[in-house]
Parts: sequence; structure tokens; C-alpha cells
Amino acid sequence: MTHRSAGPEILRLIDLLAKLPGLGPRSARRAALHLLKRPDQLLTPLAAALADAAEKVVACRECGNFDTVDPCSICTAAGRDDAVICAVEQVGDLWAMERSGVFRGRYHVLGGVLSALDGVGPDDLNLSGLIARALRPEVREVILALNATVEGQTTVHYIADRLAGVDVVVTRLAHGVPVGGELDHLDDGTIAAAMASRR
Amino acid sequence: MTHRSAGPEILRLIDLLAKLPGLGPRSARRAALHLLKRPDQLLTPLAAALADAAEKVVACRECGNFDTVDPCSICTAAGRDDAVICAVEQVGDLWAMERSGVFRGRYHVLGGVLSALDGVGPDDLNLSGLIARALRPEVREVILALNATVEGQTTVHYIADRLAGVDVVVTRLAHGVPVGGELDHLDDGTIAAAMASRR
Repeated sequence: MTHRSAGPEILRLIDLLAKLPGLGPRSARRAALHLLKRPDQLLTPLAAALADAAEKVVACRECGNFDTVDPCSICTAAGRDDAVICAVEQVGDLWAMERSGVFRGRYHVLGGVLSALDGVGPDDLNLSGLIARALRPEVREVILALNATVEGQTTVHYIADRLAGVDVVVTRLAHGVPVGGELDHLDDGTIAAAMASRR
Repeated sequence: MTHRSAGPEILRLIDLLAKLPGLGPRSARRAALHLLKRPDQLLTPLAAALADAAEKVVACRECGNFDTVDPCSICTAAGRDDAVICAVEQVGDLWAMERSGVFRGRYHVLGGVLSALDGVGPDDLNLSGLIARALRPEVREVILALNATVEGQTTVHYIADRLAGVDVVVTRLAHGVPVGGELDHLDDGTIAAAMASRR
């Protein structure tokens, strides 16, 4: 698709915006125009926010969370339980856990899941860091809070095996009916899991 | 929705990304994480591209197109027909016309359409500029290429009235069946327009 009407600066902006998840070439054009129409309210502030993030935000060497301090503010927060580590796939999952407000331990971001299809092996995940942390005397439980996908559950089994020799309790999230979920819209696997785990 | 886990730099980035069309709070979070995971390939280049656009791109004082030169490269391009001005609502419509490659005259971006609901009156559009350009002796035709919406067509009628005393031919885009369109999926108004304009 050519834009003979737009200069190289605008084309470059559109190309980069189109690489964001949820934006294609068409919506990236729309986003670029939206920005160009609002130079002071949006274009310049967004440029500054991105430059600021590029300069200051780093991945925590302890858990993999994004923050402006390293170790991150969750790893150093007083009043959180050092005995429990919740392993998640991505930083977005960590944020989702924090929004729910139910977990007060520490996190560990694996950075993905095992996937033969995508060529992701154990060495591509931050697994050695998790095992090193699990070996610390204060750690009593590792929660494997991975997605309920085939890859996620394969990875859960693999990590549980790797942690078998470590003196920690390895747990995983319960499967079941989502709160507010209707049985009629659930797949058979979820219903079977909810039945098997009924209380 | 709180992000106790993310610092103010990340929150600000998410808030600004959420203002882009097509991104909500959830997809803005996803986009921010996507950027943070790719600092060198995406985050820094996008920051630079936005800063570059903020610094260099301006609205053309002649036609309203965005470009790094003013007047824009379309207004100054040799080999385009000065006798025909195509008026469009937004710069995105100008780009769409250019992609189609069928128009070789000059453009005029109105910056919107008349809308009582949104409080957009004639003074909010770049109408005086269009009328001044239409009065130039070399201009023979003004094409009102506005969207086929109620507001667009109201604006077409209003501009046609304002241009009634000017010695130019005022035309508008034909209504009809889109190329590749199926009758079964078209509204009655389009079918009626296509029938009335049949050749």
C-alpha cells in the first residue's frame, strides 16, 4: 500500500504503530492521523512517555517484572511474603494477579512457555532463576500460575518435575467455572475440571 | 483499574496509548508490554519517530494536508491540475484518494463536517480557504468528496450553496454499489441511488 501523499516521517510512524498488537496497517494510519491532529495534547506527550520508559524502565533481575528500579518495587516491598513465589508467563499476567489483589507474596516472570512449535525450550525461559530462588531456605511454596493452555500446562508439568527435588510445595491454579460464567458457554474440559474439583 | 505493580512511567504510557483510536485500556496495557519487551527494536524507534513527527510535520496552510513542508508536496507538485480542487473531510480521506490514484488535481481538507450534535458550525471548518481558492481564475471545478453520511451530505449541500455565486462547476462523488459489493448486503438507500444513476 503506497502513501504517495505522506512524507517518510509519517510513513515511518505508521509502520512502527502497525507493529503494536491490536493495530494493523489501516488502524495504524488512523492512529497516526489522530496523533498528528493533536500535537500538543497527544503526539508530544506520547513521544516523551516512550522516551522516558525507554530510558528508565528495566526488567527486574530478580523476578523479571518491569519497573524503574532493579530489583523492582514488588521484590523489595516490605510486608510481602517471601515464603511464596508465584510464577507467571508474562509481566501482563503479574499485573493481572496484582489487580486481583489476592496474592501478597513475590513473583517470578518466566518470559513465556515451552513450545516445540515456536522453538521455545527450557533454556529460553527464566527457569534457572526460579529454581535458584526456590532453593532459598525461606521459600516454602511455588505457585505455577500459568495460562490454562496446552503449552501453559505442559510447562507447569515440566517445572513441577524440575522442582521435584527441591523442598518446596508446588501448587497450581484451580480449573473451574469462571465467576459469572455460564455453563452453556463453557467448553467440556472446563466443565469436567469443575466437576472433578467440586467441593 | 489500579496497577500497583507498575510505576508512574508505565502508567502514563498506558494512559496515553489508550487514547489512540482502536486501543482501550486493556489493549493499551498489552501494547505497552509489547513495547517494553522490545526496547531497541520498537520502543526507542517509536519514541524517535513520534518526536520526529512532532518536530517536523505541519498542516499545509494551503490545503490542510500533513507534510514536512508547507505548502505540502501535493500543493507544489508539478504536473497536477490546478483547475480542479477535491475537498475532503480529513487528511485520511486525502490519503485514501491518493491511494486510489485516480485524482491528479489539488486537495482541500475541510477538517470535519457540519454537525449540530457535535457543535461543529461553518466557522469550525476550513471553508473560507476553500472559497478563496475557488475564486482563483485557474480553478474550474470543485469536487465535494465528502463521506456519504448524513453530516457529510448536509455539508456538501451547504458548501454547494456557498459556492453558488462562484464561477466553478461543483460536483460530488457518485453513489452506487461498491465494486465487489453484493446487493444482498447493501442498504436500500444505496440500491436506490445505484438504480437512479444507472447507465
